[in-house]
Amino acid sequence: MLKNFIGGIIVNVSKKVIGVTLAGALVLGSLGLANNGEKVEAKKDPTKAKNVIMLVMDGTSAGATTLARYYKGEKLALDEIMTGGVSTFSAESAITDSAPAATALATGNKSNDKYVGVLPSVVNSPGVDPSLTKNAFKPVVNVLEGAKASGKATGIIATSEIQHATPAGFSAHVDQRSNYDTIAEQQVYQGIDVVLGGGKEALELGSGKNNRKDGENLIEVIEEKGYDLVETKDALLNSKSKKIWGAFAPNALAYDFDREETKPEEPTLADMTGKAINTLSKDKDGFFLFVEGSKVDWAAHSNDPIGIIGDVLAFDSAVEKALDFAKKDKNTLVIAITDHANSGITIGNLNTSSSYPSIPVSAYIDPLKKASMTLEGALTKYNAGEVSLTEAAALYGLDQLSNEESAKLKASKNLGKTFVELLSARANIGFTTGGHTGEDVFLYSYGPGNPVGFIDNTDIAHTMAASMGFDLKRLDKNMFIKASDAFKGATLKTDNTDGKNPVLTVKKGKKVAAFPVNKNIMIINGKETELNSIVVQSKTGEFYVSKDTVNTFEKAK
Amino acid sequence: MLKNFIGGIIVNVSKKVIGVTLAGALVLGSLGLANNGEKVEAKKDPTKAKNVIMLVMDGTSAGATTLARYYKGEKLALDEIMTGGVSTFSAESAITDSAPAATALATGNKSNDKYVGVLPSVVNSPGVDPSLTKNAFKPVVNVLEGAKASGKATGIIATSEIQHATPAGFSAHVDQRSNYDTIAEQQVYQGIDVVLGGGKEALELGSGKNNRKDGENLIEVIEEKGYDLVETKDALLNSKSKKIWGAFAPNALAYDFDREETKPEEPTLADMTGKAINTLSKDKDGFFLFVEGSKVDWAAHSNDPIGIIGDVLAFDSAVEKALDFAKKDKNTLVIAITDHANSGITIGNLNTSSSYPSIPVSAYIDPLKKASMTLEGALTKYNAGEVSLTEAAALYGLDQLSNEESAKLKASKNLGKTFVELLSARANIGFTTGGHTGEDVFLYSYGPGNPVGFIDNTDIAHTMAASMGFDLKRLDKNMFIKASDAFKGATLKTDNTDGKNPVLTVKKGKKVAAFPVNKNIMIINGKETELNSIVVQSKTGEFYVSKDTVNTFEKAK
Repeated sequence: MLKNFIGGIIVNVSKKVIGVTLAGALVLGSLGLANNGEKVEAKKDPTKAKNVIMLVMDGTSAGATTLARYYKGEKLALDEIMTGGVSTFSAESAITDSAPAATALATGNKSNDKYVGVLPSVVNSPGVDPSLTKNAFKPVVNVLEGAKASGKATGIIATSEIQHATPAGFSAHVDQRSNYDTIAEQQVYQGIDVVLGGGKEALELGSGKNNRKDGENLIEVIEEKGYDLVETKDALLNSKSKKIWGAFAPNALAYDFDREETKPEEPTLADMTGKAINTLSKDKDGFFLFVEGSKVDWAAHSNDPIGIIGDVLAFDSAVEKALDFAKKDKNTLVIAITDHANSGITIGNLNTSSSYPSIPVSAYIDPLKKASMTLEGALTKYNAGEVSLTEAAALYGLDQLSNEESAKLKASKNLGKTFVELLSARANIGFTTGGHTGEDVFLYSYGPGNPVGFIDNTDIAHTMAASMGFDLKRLDKNMFIKASDAFKGATLKTDNTDGKNPVLTVKKGKKVAAFPVNKNIMIINGKETELNSIVVQSKTGEFYVSKDTVNTFEKAK
Repeated sequence: MLKNFIGGIIVNVSKKVIGVTLAGALVLGSLGLANNGEKVEAKKDPTKAKNVIMLVMDGTSAGATTLARYYKGEKLALDEIMTGGVSTFSAESAITDSAPAATALATGNKSNDKYVGVLPSVVNSPGVDPSLTKNAFKPVVNVLEGAKASGKATGIIATSEIQHATPAGFSAHVDQRSNYDTIAEQQVYQGIDVVLGGGKEALELGSGKNNRKDGENLIEVIEEKGYDLVETKDALLNSKSKKIWGAFAPNALAYDFDREETKPEEPTLADMTGKAINTLSKDKDGFFLFVEGSKVDWAAHSNDPIGIIGDVLAFDSAVEKALDFAKKDKNTLVIAITDHANSGITIGNLNTSSSYPSIPVSAYIDPLKKASMTLEGALTKYNAGEVSLTEAAALYGLDQLSNEESAKLKASKNLGKTFVELLSARANIGFTTGGHTGEDVFLYSYGPGNPVGFIDNTDIAHTMAASMGFDLKRLDKNMFIKASDAFKGATLKTDNTDGKNPVLTVKKGKKVAAFPVNKNIMIINGKETELNSIVVQSKTGEFYVSKDTVNTFEKAK
């Protein structure tokens, strides 16, 4: 840590900050010198936070959190920090999907379906600047990259594959969310300190659906980069490393409700959150941590109230970990939200249209309490031949089937659909759709500079950035510049010899540098130099580099 | 206005305060005298407000306000003041109806289905004190009564009958919300300064459904009490009276969306709100105003998005009036909420389960924009023979019917249901029920002491009371005392000679007083004395009176 005096106030400037051109203001430290030379506390800007923890429960409607509270029988950690609401529409649609939602939350830009961390090509939503499409597909800086450029430690956590749309929005830039090859590679080369979740398959070569097609063995890279690669809860909790990569499942982790039964070696979301906070909070410059409870959304798509409730409560425990830290630390901003509503879940359905005013809470909750597994858990056991259909139904809370229920189960051509319909009928739960929905969602926040009131999802990104002391728009101008504009007086070519792994070559005078796509690497005369940011190629074929990368090239011999 | 010195600070004490035993602290005025005798501003308690405006949009889900914003094409007034969320369950049910919701909001007590301003007889919801049932049916003081006891002017407004459950919760005490006879009578004798809405039928003798059965001509009483009785928008806006009773329709007012076409003489909710604020704000002690946009709820029960949107926007205009005043006044607390969600309305339905990420806002809004009348408006014209079925459908936005749509309309046995199903299919709107739903709802508030965060509906009542400087629980101990406990050493009898109008007689020594139920009147030797509060008989037969009423009796000769 270097110390520097500016106007009598000590500013903490880390090596990392000096390494990268920072567009935003520097964060003032908390120590100063009074005129008499005594150390005094500098007055802290109440809108600035040293640390930011952003938690997203994917696809969680208000009906889901209300139901989870009744199921738990006591208040949620979330209840303590509710501060307003958020609009969630995308650049092209009233109802967003997770990729443009994550792009909004992480970069402050509305985008399109499937787009992760890049600008939209279609804008038709009211209030969204249509001129964004002039730079369609351009990568835009996210708050994690801004935090890293500010010298902070960073982390991402998800219960899905870590390459899934929402964590990808905070760590990658690609026009197709299903392109796990690119997302995983960018994540590995982003220099993130703690990465925890599922998605090991997308790091490995092989023939699995998500195994890599580009020949890059990222497991090796992760180990070369000095990460402690952990694959179980115990290994995670015992790790002493400052850099941890947890890959706890080939793809998604189990639903929290099923975990003890089916995957007891996997950590909970709260385990991962607590360990990440412990690890990242050792950085004196502070940290940015993104945490996703990914599978509330998947359960909602299936209209499965058990999966929804279990994963909302698991998420809430992670929020509690974050809040416990923030309350002690007093210098941490915590934001928790959902990226969008999903399924139109309501307490009350067509059963209750006229009887609702006298139906007790127990009539909704008791039928749900009978379930010991989620829909996925029960059907996996049935499909594996471990249990009979009646036993699977009982695992899902459908015990003592009526004749009508039995008949429906036997005649079912879609057991998942029949299971959830039967349970929801018993529990008087309504759904309007198998997709997301467009209503505003609740905002939860705590700590210095926390957002309040009714805001847009894009405001969250700008608030987090301001809290950490930088401006996303200004930072973006230095972070993702068209290579063709950035390298003045140079000749640029794209080397597609390895079709899956394009390389940008930059020739200036006798100097020739190669920049492999999705990596933070420059190669000159076979010598690799590590860059402070990744090189991204957009759908238009254009490469994007940071000003710092250009400077590194100019200074190289 | 009397002036009184306490410790050098001038306290404004109105005649009304002296007339009633006030349990809470007195509200400090804003003027004081410095030691040198100069007038100075006394430091204002930032949690106290001179005026409170409480606005309820009945039965409005988050999907409804989001949809209304898209329909309007710009931000709502509500958006500016969103501050958190509210839980809405009743003492007996996860999903509340309007009567216990209004009781919670107005008195701070959870209650039961149908109960207005009285304690519950059934408690099974988690967190609700079961011992409340020991005093089942006991009337409990509401914030309007507290405001009046504090010397403030008061008003109630609704677009339904003014006797409907929600306005009743702020002005009456009865165990059956449909008992308009009792509710109307209590409202007339409550001494409310401004009463605006529908419900003229319940003030008049006659044979209509809601006409009075008890022989009491309340129209005469209203005029005797010095109200300016107005029945049109013009008469309302031209009134110069301090006391106004607006009865603009026999029962409910028209939906705002239909008003210009069907009832142009009716005021809008914003007209009523603006006039009430102008009138009540002349009281130097401040005012309490309750405003309800009643019919969002009714449209939601019918799953009619047009009625919902029109009345949400009309409500929002009323909120704007309140906010305009509060911003200038700087001493007014504004709270806006819904009492509960209704219908499970979502942007998105089974049509959009997989296609939602790329469906523009226009695909939801354009089909709705074609409607020029609500469901009620279009069907009323059809049922009156004014338009054909095809024309009625077109009024509801269902133009250029497909063959399939025409066939459904012709075969329909429930036109209302078919109309809304066809429109919602076109507009991709989902519903889960024809009843209310149980999810938490958004909280909107502005001004001194405004509530923020996640709170219970009962907290709203206590917050408003605290803001006005009184405590509901303490005030209740003086406001509704069992007559059998209150009149020490007296003999009480109930005179049921006129079965519909019981009278409490109290005999002490030679003094015999009669207290007709639901009125603020004491009669001794044929001489009527006006009381500061109404006399209420509960379902148990017990009469309830205030301490002030007892004092008035004791002092009477």
